[in-house]
Parts: sequence; C-alpha cells; structure tokens
Amino acid sequence: MSLKEDFIKKDGRSFPGKVYVEALLKPVFNDQRDFLLDAMFALHRAHVIMLAEQALLPKEEARKILSGLEELEKVERTDIRYNPRFEDLFFLMEAKLGEVIGDELAGKVHLARSRNDMGEGMYRYVLREKILSLVQDVDSLSEALIEQAKLHIHSIMPAHTHTQPAQPTTFGHYLLAIYDNLRRDRARLMQAYKTVNVSPLGAAAITTTGFDISRERLAELLGFEEVLENSYDAIGTGDYLIDAAQSVISLMVNTGRWVQEFLRFASHEVGLVRVADAYVQTSSIMPQKRNPVSIEHSRSLASNAVGKAQTVIQMLHNTPYGDINDSEDDLQPTLYDSLHTAERVMKLMNAVIRTMDFNVTRAEKQAAENLIVITELADVLTRDHGISFRKSHRIATKIAQKSVAEKKELFDWTVEEINQLIGEVKFSKKEWADIISPRVFVKRRNVRGGPSPSEVKRMIENRLQFAKEEANAFARIQGRLSGAKKMRT
Amino acid sequence: MSLKEDFIKKDGRSFPGKVYVEALLKPVFNDQRDFLLDAMFALHRAHVIMLAEQALLPKEEARKILSGLEELEKVERTDIRYNPRFEDLFFLMEAKLGEVIGDELAGKVHLARSRNDMGEGMYRYVLREKILSLVQDVDSLSEALIEQAKLHIHSIMPAHTHTQPAQPTTFGHYLLAIYDNLRRDRARLMQAYKTVNVSPLGAAAITTTGFDISRERLAELLGFEEVLENSYDAIGTGDYLIDAAQSVISLMVNTGRWVQEFLRFASHEVGLVRVADAYVQTSSIMPQKRNPVSIEHSRSLASNAVGKAQTVIQMLHNTPYGDINDSEDDLQPTLYDSLHTAERVMKLMNAVIRTMDFNVTRAEKQAAENLIVITELADVLTRDHGISFRKSHRIATKIAQKSVAEKKELFDWTVEEINQLIGEVKFSKKEWADIISPRVFVKRRNVRGGPSPSEVKRMIENRLQFAKEEANAFARIQGRLSGAKKMRT
Amino acid sequence: MSLKEDFIKKDGRSFPGKVYVEALLKPVFNDQRDFLLDAMFALHRAHVIMLAEQALLPKEEARKILSGLEELEKVERTDIRYNPRFEDLFFLMEAKLGEVIGDELAGKVHLARSRNDMGEGMYRYVLREKILSLVQDVDSLSEALIEQAKLHIHSIMPAHTHTQPAQPTTFGHYLLAIYDNLRRDRARLMQAYKTVNVSPLGAAAITTTGFDISRERLAELLGFEEVLENSYDAIGTGDYLIDAAQSVISLMVNTGRWVQEFLRFASHEVGLVRVADAYVQTSSIMPQKRNPVSIEHSRSLASNAVGKAQTVIQMLHNTPYGDINDSEDDLQPTLYDSLHTAERVMKLMNAVIRTMDFNVTRAEKQAAENLIVITELADVLTRDHGISFRKSHRIATKIAQKSVAEKKELFDWTVEEINQLIGEVKFSKKEWADIISPRVFVKRRNVRGGPSPSEVKRMIENRLQFAKEEANAFARIQGRLSGAKKMRT
Amino acid sequence: MSLKEDFIKKDGRSFPGKVYVEALLKPVFNDQRDFLLDAMFALHRAHVIMLAEQALLPKEEARKILSGLEELEKVERTDIRYNPRFEDLFFLMEAKLGEVIGDELAGKVHLARSRNDMGEGMYRYVLREKILSLVQDVDSLSEALIEQAKLHIHSIMPAHTHTQPAQPTTFGHYLLAIYDNLRRDRARLMQAYKTVNVSPLGAAAITTTGFDISRERLAELLGFEEVLENSYDAIGTGDYLIDAAQSVISLMVNTGRWVQEFLRFASHEVGLVRVADAYVQTSSIMPQKRNPVSIEHSRSLASNAVGKAQTVIQMLHNTPYGDINDSEDDLQPTLYDSLHTAERVMKLMNAVIRTMDFNVTRAEKQAAENLIVITELADVLTRDHGISFRKSHRIATKIAQKSVAEKKELFDWTVEEINQLIGEVKFSKKEWADIISPRVFVKRRNVRGGPSPSEVKRMIENRLQFAKEEANAFARIQGRLSGAKKMRT
Repeated sequence: MSLKEDFIKKDGRSFPGKVYVEALLKPVFNDQRDFLLDAMFALHRAHVIMLAEQALLPKEEARKILSGLEELEKVERTDIRYNPRFEDLFFLMEAKLGEVIGDELAGKVHLARSRNDMGEGMYRYVLREKILSLVQDVDSLSEALIEQAKLHIHSIMPAHTHTQPAQPTTFGHYLLAIYDNLRRDRARLMQAYKTVNVSPLGAAAITTTGFDISRERLAELLGFEEVLENSYDAIGTGDYLIDAAQSVISLMVNTGRWVQEFLRFASHEVGLVRVADAYVQTSSIMPQKRNPVSIEHSRSLASNAVGKAQTVIQMLHNTPYGDINDSEDDLQPTLYDSLHTAERVMKLMNAVIRTMDFNVTRAEKQAAENLIVITELADVLTRDHGISFRKSHRIATKIAQKSVAEKKELFDWTVEEINQLIGEVKFSKKEWADIISPRVFVKRRNVRGGPSPSEVKRMIENRLQFAKEEANAFARIQGRLSGAKKMRT
Repeated sequence: MSLKEDFIKKDGRSFPGKVYVEALLKPVFNDQRDFLLDAMFALHRAHVIMLAEQALLPKEEARKILSGLEELEKVERTDIRYNPRFEDLFFLMEAKLGEVIGDELAGKVHLARSRNDMGEGMYRYVLREKILSLVQDVDSLSEALIEQAKLHIHSIMPAHTHTQPAQPTTFGHYLLAIYDNLRRDRARLMQAYKTVNVSPLGAAAITTTGFDISRERLAELLGFEEVLENSYDAIGTGDYLIDAAQSVISLMVNTGRWVQEFLRFASHEVGLVRVADAYVQTSSIMPQKRNPVSIEHSRSLASNAVGKAQTVIQMLHNTPYGDINDSEDDLQPTLYDSLHTAERVMKLMNAVIRTMDFNVTRAEKQAAENLIVITELADVLTRDHGISFRKSHRIATKIAQKSVAEKKELFDWTVEEINQLIGEVKFSKKEWADIISPRVFVKRRNVRGGPSPSEVKRMIENRLQFAKEEANAFARIQGRLSGAKKMRT
Repeated sequence: MSLKEDFIKKDGRSFPGKVYVEALLKPVFNDQRDFLLDAMFALHRAHVIMLAEQALLPKEEARKILSGLEELEKVERTDIRYNPRFEDLFFLMEAKLGEVIGDELAGKVHLARSRNDMGEGMYRYVLREKILSLVQDVDSLSEALIEQAKLHIHSIMPAHTHTQPAQPTTFGHYLLAIYDNLRRDRARLMQAYKTVNVSPLGAAAITTTGFDISRERLAELLGFEEVLENSYDAIGTGDYLIDAAQSVISLMVNTGRWVQEFLRFASHEVGLVRVADAYVQTSSIMPQKRNPVSIEHSRSLASNAVGKAQTVIQMLHNTPYGDINDSEDDLQPTLYDSLHTAERVMKLMNAVIRTMDFNVTRAEKQAAENLIVITELADVLTRDHGISFRKSHRIATKIAQKSVAEKKELFDWTVEEINQLIGEVKFSKKEWADIISPRVFVKRRNVRGGPSPSEVKRMIENRLQFAKEEANAFARIQGRLSGAKKMRT
Repeated sequence: MSLKEDFIKKDGRSFPGKVYVEALLKPVFNDQRDFLLDAMFALHRAHVIMLAEQALLPKEEARKILSGLEELEKVERTDIRYNPRFEDLFFLMEAKLGEVIGDELAGKVHLARSRNDMGEGMYRYVLREKILSLVQDVDSLSEALIEQAKLHIHSIMPAHTHTQPAQPTTFGHYLLAIYDNLRRDRARLMQAYKTVNVSPLGAAAITTTGFDISRERLAELLGFEEVLENSYDAIGTGDYLIDAAQSVISLMVNTGRWVQEFLRFASHEVGLVRVADAYVQTSSIMPQKRNPVSIEHSRSLASNAVGKAQTVIQMLHNTPYGDINDSEDDLQPTLYDSLHTAERVMKLMNAVIRTMDFNVTRAEKQAAENLIVITELADVLTRDHGISFRKSHRIATKIAQKSVAEKKELFDWTVEEINQLIGEVKFSKKEWADIISPRVFVKRRNVRGGPSPSEVKRMIENRLQFAKEEANAFARIQGRLSGAKKMRT
C-alpha cells in the first residue's frame, strides 16, 4: 500500500519510527536526564539494599551493584545523550551499569519491581524536593513581609474598599494580612508535600510482586513518610500531582492579588511605594519614569505559573484511572516549570519588599482626606455621648453631605463650626481633633485583629513564635531526608 | 450632551439606573434570597446576643430585636421580591424588621459591624453547609464502593496498563484503590471546610471597630472554629473560596478518571459491568443497546463541576487584594453550583455502583488471556528454581514469542510441551497449572497492598475501622453546629 | 444481594431510578423546556414540510400535523412539568401531539430522522439566536464608545506604559483603540455564528437515512446557511460549541482589560472618569465615596463568563468523538449562561460609557506633568535643527536629569534657561512653548493611526461607514431567519 | 535600615539587582536570543529602508547600516550571552552594531520608533511563522486521513452512540468526518494568522511619531497584510495572542476527541486498528502487549498544548489594556511551546495514521452483531411495504425483543421464521438478506453526507479539489513572505 510504504521508507519499519524519536523519545529522554537521574540512583540503591536485607539478593552481589552505581553516578550529565538503541534513559543507564558490573548483575536491579513503581517513585522523589525548595522561598518572602510590617506598625495609610479609600489603617496591619495569607498557602504546600511524600514502591507493575519484599523498608530508605498502600492506587492515582499543582495555583492567585495592589501603590498617581533602583527600569531620556517592572513581571509570571499548574490538571482530566502515559513523562516537566516559575515570583517580590520605600508622609496625608474617618464621628456620638445609633448616623450624614457640597475635608471644620452643626452635643477641642485624626482612629481599633499598633505588635510576636516552630518542623523534615540519604550509602 | 441625556431619559438619573437593576441588582437579589437568608438571620441573632452580653445593647432591646427576627423568619420566601427602593435584600429585610420593632431598634442590629464582615460571614456560613452536604454524598458513595469491594475480593479481572490488559487482579482490589482515592478527596474537602469555617465577624468594614465587641463569642455563637484574626485579612482574603473550589476540582478530576474506566467496563466490547435497568437508556426498537447514560452524565457533570470551580478561581485572578465585588455576590452562586453538580455526580455513581452487576465469569476469562501471566513464569523460575534473573526472562520471552507466533495462550500449552521448550527445568503439572492461573497469580501477590484476597480483606477492615472514626468526627462537627444554633435561640 | 436490593427497594428496579430522576432527568427536562421548546416546534414544522414536499408524507397528513403543532405551541410553558412516564420533554410533547392528532400521525414526525440530528439541530438553532443577541449588545456598546470618542477628539490625557504615565494622547484616540478591539471581537462572534449556523438535519442517528429526504430544503426552511455535510460529523462534532465559547472568551478577556483601565480612571487617586450617579453605590454616611460598582461587577461578570465558556471546552475535552451526552443537555445551559453573562457586561459598560463624565481639565493637567513630553524635545532637535540623533538624546537626557534633580517639570523652565542649558541651539519662545505642550505633541502625531485630532476624526468616519455596512449585513441575516420562519407557517 | 541594607549588600544597589538578573533578565535574554533574533534583523532592515525612502535618513547612511546588520547577522547564536551591562538582547545587539558601524549610526536605527512597536512587530513576525508551520503539519495529517479514507470507502464498521455500537457505517465515512473537523480547525488557524499578520510598526511608544514615516511601507517590507491602524491599539491589544492560542485549543480539543477514539480502536478488546510496530512499545517478555503509546502521548501532548494555550489567555486576563509586560517576554515562549506541542501531536498522529492497519474483517463482523441494523427493518416495512410508521416500529420492536430474549442476532433468523413472526408481510430471501447486511445498510444511506461508498467518494473528490485551492492560497502567502524578504536585502 503506497501511502504506508512511502512513509515507512523514510521513517523505518521497526520501533522506534523516526518521527517517534524526534517528536517524543528524544525530548522525553532529555527531560529525564535533566530531572530524574538523581532520583533513579537513589531508588536503585534503596531497592538493592532492601533486596539484600530480605535475602532476595546475596549481600556480595548487592555490594557490587552499589559500587557500580557509585561509579556510574560520576558520569558527566552532558555526556549522556539519546541513543535510539535504548527506549529511554533508564534502559541506557542499565546498559551502562552492565558495562561496569556485567549484564547479569545489572539485570538484578529490576528483581521484584517494575518501571511503573520506579517511575512513580522518581516523580514523587523529585516533586517533593521542588516543593520544599519553593517553601523556602515562601519563607524568605514571609520574613521580608513581617520585617516590613514591624517597621510600619505606626505608618498610617488608607484602606480601600471597592477600589476607593474607605478607612485609615496602617501599612503594618496590611502587610500582616498578606503575611497570614501567605502562611496559609505555605501550609497548603506542606499539605501537598505530605500527599506527595508517600511511597508507591513495591507496587511493581500494578499488583505488587510474588517476592517477599519490604515496602516499609523501601519507604524508609527513601525518606517517604508512609507507604501508599493499595498497589493499584500507587500506580494509578494522579492526586498527588493535582495536590501539588493546586497548592501552586492557590499560592499564585493569592499572591497575584496583593501584587496587583503593589502595582497600584507604585503607580505615579498613588505613589505610596517607591521600588528600589535595582528593581525599576527607566530610560536615560526618561529618568523620571520608574517602571516597576519587577512587580509587573511578578504578576505575569504568577499567571504563567497558574496556567502551567492548571495544565497539569488538564492533562489528567478525563483520562482513565490506572497506568497511563498522561500522568508521566509529558506531564512532569510542566509541573516542575510551574513550581519554578512560582519560585521566581517569590524571589522577585522578596527583593522588591526588602528594598522598597514606603512614603509615610504621603500615606498619612491620604488617610486624612476624602472624609474617610466620618464613621468614627457617628461612633463617638453613640459611644461617648449616648446618642442613639440612628440619630448619630443622621448627624454624621448631614456633616458628610455638607462637606461634600462645600468641598471640605473634615479637618477643614473647626470644633465650633461642628458643634454648631450638630446642635445637641458639644465636642471638646481634643475630642474633635481625635475624631479627625486617622492616627487616633487606628489606635482605637484595638479589638482582636484590628490595626491598633499594640494589637498589630502582639500579632507579629505571635506569628514570629509560630514561624519558629514551623522552621523547626521544616528542619526535621530535611533531617529525615538527609538521614535517608545516609542510609543509602 | 445628547448621547448621555438620551440614555438617561430612559434609564433614570439617580441610582439605580434601569440597566443596573436588570443586569445586576435583580439577579443578585434573587441569589441572595435563595442562598443567604438563613445565614443572615443566624448572623443577626449572634450579633445581637453578643452586643447584649458585652453591654453594648440593653438586654431588653436585645430581646425585642430577637423576637422581631423570629417573626420575620416566618415570612414565605416566595413573597420576598426585589424592590428598587432597597439596594439589596439586606436593606429590604432591615426595613421589614423596622416595620415590626421600629426603625430605631432595627438600626441597632448594625452597631459595631458592617456589611463587609456580615457578607463574608454569610458566605462562609453557607459554604460550610454545602461542603458538609457534599461530604455526606462522598460518604455514601464510599460505602457503596467498599461494600462492592467486599463482594469482589475473589473476582479476578485483568488490570490494564497503557490501555492494554497487563496483569490479573481482582475487582475488589481495584474498587479499594478507587475508595482510597475518594477518601483522600474527602480529607481535602474537610480541609477546605476547616479553611472556610473561621469567623471574619468583628472585622467590620475592614479595620474592626472602636466598640468593645467579642469576636470570639461571635465565632462561638455561629459554630465557627476560630476567629480569622487580622481584620484586613478577614475581609480581603479569597483563599477559602479557592480551597473550596480546589477540593471540588480534585474530587471531580479524580472521580472522572475512574468514571472513564467504568464507561469502558460497561462498553459492549469489554462487557464487565452491567449497569442496572434503572440507570441505562434504551429505545423500544433497540432493547439490546443499553446506553450507560448515568455514567456518561457523571463524566459530563464532573467536567461541568470542574469548570465552574475553575470559574471561581478565574474570578479572583488578578483582582486586587481587599474588599472587592469580585469575590462576592457574582461569585458565590457559581461556587454553590459547582458543589451541587459534584453532588449529582456522587449520587449518580452511588446508584450505579450499588445496583450494577459485575460479570465475574467474563472478567476471569479475560484475565487468563493475552499471556498476561507471563511475568509470573519468569518469577517462578527465579524464585523457586534458582534460575538467574536474566535467564528466567530469556526463557519467558522465548515462550511468549512462540505463543504469539502460534497464536496460542499460555493455557494452550501442556506442561510437557513447556518443559520441553524450557529444557533445564521441569515443572510439575501443579506448578504449571498455578503459573497459568490468574487466581494463583493474584493469591501470590500478598505483599502489603497487593491484590491477594487476604490482603484486600485486611485493607477493607482497616478502612472500615477508620471510616467509623471519621463518621464520629463528622458527627461531632454537626453537633457543634447544632449546638451553636441552640445558643442563638 | 442485600446492598443492591436495599437500594432498589427505595429507588426502583426499572428505568428511571429515583436518583436518576432527581439528579438528572428533572433538571434536564426543565432546561429543555426553558431553552429548546421553540426550536423543537421549528424543527418539527420544517421536517414535516420537507417530508411532504419529498412525497414521503401525504400532503393532507402534513397539514394535520402542522395544525396539531400549532395548537400545541399555545400551551403555557409553566404548565409543562416533568412526568416520569416520559424520558424527556420531547417524548412528552410527542404524546401530547398524539392526544391532539392521534398517535399514528404524531409518530410520523419522526420518519427519516432521529433524536440525534434533532438534538444537534435544536442546539444550533438556539445558540445562533443567543450569539446574535450578544452581537446586538456589542453593537450598542460600540456605538457608545465611538460617540464618546467623537466628543473627546481634543481631550488630552496621559497614555500609560508599564503602569506609568508615558506620553500625551487623547481620550478619543484611546476610546477608538478599544472600539477597534471590540469590533474585532464582534467579527469573531459573527465567525462563530457562521460555524454554528449550518444544518446537521438529515444526519439522523449518525448515518443519514434510507429515505429520500432533502437536507438542503431542511436547512433552508430553518434559516441555516449550509448543510453540515458528513453525517458522522454532523452528529459528532463539538467544534461549533468551542467556536461559540471561544468568541465569548476573547470578547470578555479583551473587554476585561479596558474595564480594568476604567476602574483605574474612576479611582479616587486618578480621577479622570466620573461614573454617573445611577451607576455608583454610596452610603448615606459616606456620600463622597463613589464606589464604581457597575465597572467592578463588569470585571467580575466578565471573568464569570470566561470561566463558564471555558467550562464548555472542559466538558468536551478528552471525550470520544461521536454521539455522546457530554456535548448535549448538560453542556448547553452553561454555554447559554456564559453568553447571557457576557451580555450583562456589555449592557453595564454601555450604560457606564454613555453616562460618564470625563474630567478634561484634570486629564490635560496630568498630561503635562512628569516630563512626559521630553522625547519630543529630542525629536525637535533632530527634526528641525539637524542635530544628530544621539546628540539630541544626550541633550534631552541632560535636561531630564536636571529636572528630576531640581524637582521641576519641563514647563518650569523658561526658554532662556533651556537655551542656556542646551548651548548650541536657540529655541524661539514659540518653539519651546510647543515642545512643552501636550496639545502640540498630540497634534504633531498625525501619522496614520496617531492621536492627532484630524487623524482620529478620519478614523472615526471610516469606522462609522464600515459599521453601517455591518449593520446592513446583520439586517440581511435577520431577514433570512424571519424569512425562514415565514416559510414554516 | 538593616533589613534593606543587608539585602542590598548582596544584591546591589543599582539596576539590575542580582535577583532580578537571575529570576528575570537572564531567562528573558535567552528566550529572546532563541526566538526573536531573526525578527529583529528583519525589522531593523525594513525600518532603515523605509527611513531612507522617506528621506529621514541619507541613502548612504542607510547602506552602511544595512551592511553592518548583514555582518552582525553572521554571529554565531551560541556566542551571544547575557551581559549585565545591557538591559536586554536588543541593547546588546545595538552596542555590537555600534562596534561595526559606529555608535552614531547605530543609534539611528531607532529614529522614529520605539522598543514598543519593535517588540510587538517581532512577536507577530515570529508567531505567524509558527502558525504557518503548524498549518503544514495539519495539512500533512489531513492528507494521511483522506488517503486512508479513500482506501476504506468500503470498509464496514459499527458507529457508536453513547459508547455503544449503534449503526453500521464505513471507516472511510468516519475518517472523512474527522478530516472535515480538522480542516475547519485549519481554517481557524489561518484566521488567527490573519489577525496576527498585521503591522503595529510605526506606532512607536504608543502614539506614533512626529516624523513623516510610512507605516504602509513598513508593513509591505515585512510581509504584513495590513497596518494595525490605531497606534494605541497596535501596542495595547492582546487579541492576536488570544486568537492564536484559541486556534490551538480548538485544534487540540477536537483532535483529542478522535485520538480518544483511536485509543479505543487500538484496545485489545475492540481491536480494529493495529498500530504499526514503529509506533507501539512492547517489552521482550510481553511481545503480545502492544502499547499504543504514540496515540497515548498524542492525547497527553494535546492536553498539554491546550493547557499552555490557556496559560496565554490566563496571562492576559484582568491585566490593564495598554503597554504591559504581561503580554510580552514572559508570555511569548509559552505560546510558542503550545504551538510546538501541537505540532508534535500532528506529527505523531500523521505517522500513526499512515502506517496503521485497519482490521476490515473484524470491523465488518462487529457491524453485523448486536442487532444494530434493526432500524432498517422498520424502515423497509414502511418504505417498501407501505406499513404505517408506528406499526413498522412495533414489528421491529417485537423482533428485537425476541432476539434479545433468545440471545440471537438478526442473521440467526431465517427468512421463513421472520415472515412467520411478522405475519402480514412476506419478505423475499433477498429482501431479508439485504436487511441484515451492514453493507446494504450502508449502501442505502446515499443521502448527501451519508456513508454510502458513492457518496463518500464524491465527498472525497470534492475535498481534494478544495484542498488544492487551499494549497495554492498557502503558496501565495509564502510567496508574499519570501517576496518581502527579498525586498529587505
């Protein structure tokens, strides 16, 4: 049949066809080399040690295999190139191991396991490292935020609602809100880590094996916290990928929201945040135009990371549950890319936050304008003068309307004018000064979680204490991983 | 200016313009009535009780307000219609409350709070109920799966890898894998519940209040587990919406994968699952064509729920952090819709699973075909006859190739033929019979998590025990909510 | 088996199970009634007329069926309720038709067709109307934009790049850019209309029919522009849904971008656009806080429409090509919802644009600040004084840096000071006044597509002329549809 | 302030900070080098030629610049490395050009333009090539499909509805349906090409320039079909990115659907398509297990391409309309990646389709089973024997039910048995043989678009004719691009 034969003439009759090599095997090989090689060695080591302990492999053979692996690990990564004789990187590496210790022995690395559990094991091994790496960047940015919060406990600024200035708060209060958001996303990353860091090893192709292996020991040797029990589940599930992807989506969407705010703060018209010279782009001819590109790129990279994480979910969507390619080599690099892009956002905003200047004077001035303390007037009437709730509101409304009509700010009224306007209540000079002061407004809001400096200070201390505990827990996790590494050597 | 004046003539000069009413206020009003009214009453009650306890409201006034609310709660929902005099449902209800207890008293419901914290409180109040409701459907489906798993501990079937039959397992083993996946999604739903079920109340507009309220008491009266501390965070965060949406996405994508498998099982060509009459559509003229529409609809509804949950994330994406409409009335109904659609999927698959028949005979037959036990031959040679790993593989390969060439199944060979083919090993009749038996294949895989009936049985018991604990925890949560309800009356 | 029998006891043994009714059939029935009933009558009529013309049905019988349909069409929609005796709305309507003209005759409506092509035909029939309806709202908003552009040909304002003021332009120039974007999205909607408006009728179940029908005549009678030829394609394709969904996504993402800008214009700090009273929300106590909620809701509804349109694509993703439920009753309402939500955005922004005030004075003032005409200084030196390109830039840079250092605007320098600073060139007073004038800056940019009033005016006239042609084409399309309607009666 | 100073000590005080270099500038530089360099040279050349023609640059200077560019173009790409002295690749190249022809002259390349229009011009220049490249792969796959369709005009197979066999058709009819779908996606790609291939050049920063340039000539010299007129639009719009992304999404979702079907065809249980050896993966020990990995990877890569294209839309979502980074260097590589991934899918499926075997015998056998021609029995009764529609259905229903009850196929009944069952009609032997023949079933469906071989043949010829016209049009487009290239040298 000519259609077919024509094609075969160029492409080859036997596996792999040339198109398959170019469109698939070669790019996959390169990804495996760049991402999975360390994981492969770790898994090989753990498996061989376990086999020997279970007496499924003579100790002496195990020793030889381990030393063969050690030699192989020294190979320069750039010397590893796709070779059509081998289906993928792992077959190639097995052949190379055979060159060192003989094919017979090299073959035994695969006793009582399969490419399936090995693959899933490698993906989880690599993914957990990338999650921990991202967590470290989250921690660094968190530190920047809380340190800036500390410095701005007393820095008054207007809080916006519906894109309009609404009430005075402090920059410290604001930054701490962002901090809390970020820490909740950190918790989600650690939750994803927990889902990821379980061991599928021993599931073999999908039904375990007839050999008497120890799945618990495999897990321990590789620093996995638990065995992913049901072997079908171990091979078939994609939920750890979704968990990882979703923790990035949450982090990036939540981050993107306050990044959007920082772009507003840094805009010429609002002008509350001055991005440091190292993080703005200007042109020689326009030195006044400080483009806050580092924040802009943070927004676009955050969206990029979201999109790539959603791609991971898209790739699993409507695929059959079980052993499929969709969750494997085509998917993993996009997930790593998403995590890496999220890291770039964390690093950029960390740098921006640590080096920015907040315009304290301008912020406080904005917080006094646009009548945004007017609700306090009503509250004072009710709280301190026993005026009924509705009446207080009616009075405040009247003054607000009069101010708007006369284009006045509250601080443009003297206490005498105000007292005349109100009629039945006489504010003292101090009382009126307090009402129109954003600083007093903020100080009075010392209910739990409010912007009053004392409350914000308390919250910061509480967070710092908790962060210390989280750092300890993180160190324990890293300790377990390096402990496992030692066990494997 | 004619462009403007022409439009204003039809649309009106003052708020709300006619277009605004039709395109926004009216649909939002209807959503609020359908979804938020109970929450509003609960929040009003809790707020009034707290105010009285904090001596911010005389006890007698509190009593009057509460009894006014009680009366109002009796109003028929269908009698509540949009009225352009009121900006939204809540202003209308305040006016109605005023008709019952007087405007002065009705106004006091809003002392020391704001529409902002009230809104966020209502959303969380409603959302947590919808999550719990979905969890109940997940529990029911889980029960169906594990009960079927119990019945099919011994039902042999082929496991597929890369869409091809690969190894024998049991339907029980398979169902239990799905069960475990589903339970992890249940845990994610409960994690989302925890994120949702914290109290933003007392945050007021965004900076708390100058009145001495108790945020802890508000939380307690409404069954919230904690106070969402930073008041800016309480109003500004959208992470609870993302958490809820993502728990649905995970549940639905994971479910969609095994739903995809069930469609394959139910296909004419595979024929392992027979969907009950109540859940297939046929036509009189084609009674043999049993369209498994309930599974098909489960797939499409799962995708629908995913899409709507992603819409929630889309709506938050690149919006500023703070008080914005984007996370509020336009978003909530789409999230509820997503949760509700997920419930429909759970209910449909629950019904399908409970009423289906699994074709035990056909499944076992398929598990014996296509040489899928060939790897066991190699394993036996190594395990029981001390043949080296590579050699065993070489032997098995030879037999596999010969079988393919002669279009034979393994069971088509007699033990004598096999022994002749192998040469150096002599299998007994029993040995060979065991090798070609999917049933023995499965039995031998009794490593932890394997398909061997004893191991699957152990896993089922373990899961049932844990499910009991989860049910108790769930009951405690419901108890807390009904306890809070009692406190409010 | 008790698990099964227990469930069946409550749910029923025969089709449809109670859960199936509640979770699927009833909601689908209601959607069909709300969206598809008119389409069904139109299709029935066209089919009967065609059958008669092809002599597959006696003329007399055709007449009776048509008059039976006419009677049935008068039934009040609210009287049509789900009835478990009928699988769906269409079986119910067939039975009702049977009550009027006898079952024998009613049955003939289905000669030589199937529920499959009928379904696809109805979906396309309904969808095209919804697209045309959205196009009309796009046209109305387009008109608002171009009319405002006309009014603001001379209204200077700063154009931003990288979120910072960069160069002067006019509001007219800006609005026309948005207009052009919107018109390209209109073209995409009309392209989607074209994909949608082809006839799948006559494809029957999936392979056409053995009866000698006329697919061309069916198409003509229903106003479809062409026959979707391959009958497998006619039933199996989902591309018309994707096209429709994507035209909404494009429209909404593009619109969302300038909506985002309008929120900035309307912010307190920028203050260029004042949204009319009818479209802002305030509170009595904060009359100065004009929340531009109509723009805010436009942003959130645009995201909502995007998400729902993406849901449509999600529902088709990884489903098999062919006749499946996924593209049918579960999908269509979400697509309609997306189109309807897009309409709400168009209507809201139409109202906002028509009624807003642009602060001409403030905009022109902002356009003179921040040295944003500095590049013109360099251009003038090169263009009018023959100074080399690099030297001109060096001079402009020097002046910019000096201005920044001394916190001066360009207009703060006298011509004498400037001439002294430059040294080798002597600007006349007029020359310098022109350089620092945003108005002259704009006027000089009369290259094709530039902001110069004469060029913007030319573009507006060109657009208005083209819009007239588009309106005529649109009228022809509507004419064809109403012509087809007449043919069916 | 120690927080800040600590960081600055490591990171640097002036632009660019080290973190900015690593997290942003360096990766962006590498992308620009890999993707944009040719485009830059083309744009430089066109700009210089236009400037000379407009007498804005002396002819002699233009000649020198062009020859400088020619020299620079020879530089080895791998020798171009990020250098922190230059903000990006283009500044670096300008400096290199200065080394060749002097800085003064090198600077003139930027007369009357800006990085903004240059950027947009390069993106469109590169993107259009990637779209055309994908179109060529679409064309090749199209050819494979239609050539296979030609070979299988007579190959009977069952068409599925709702995942169950429903009616006989031919593989040719099926392939042609897919072909038609694919060609509509090709048209969408070409539509996207049209949106992309317009010239933003001359828009300069965003407001054009005061110099008398020719935007038309720039467009012509670069092969753009039109000028994107409004200069704000030229810089601000992202719709060409959305169009390109959406054309990939549509192509990939539509392709993914029939890829899903091919996986079913290739499954062991269905067994209609045998993927060629070059495109399946097996293991030595399981030679019978032919994993159709090339189709599996096509599914996963299609989802990947969809996800990345959606990322592009995500990145534009809720960003302001205007000059922003979000649509620029962070976005473009993801779009190229999406297009490239789509190409891989086209190439893989092209190879699969061209080399597969369709199991004609098995397919025809399946098409005779499961009573799927039963509807034809009813049709024949009505069409040829004048039995009323309802009665024919009643008869067919009775026979179907009896067949199901007795587990018979239609072909298991003799004509005598059937005639006895029916009673009032006597089929001849030939008539009955025809009714139960899938081949006759198909032949009779020769209505327009039906599966009858003559109709499918007619459609194929029609498509081939149209494809020729499309090929000619494509050649004209390529001619225009290479013509423009010649003009630039």
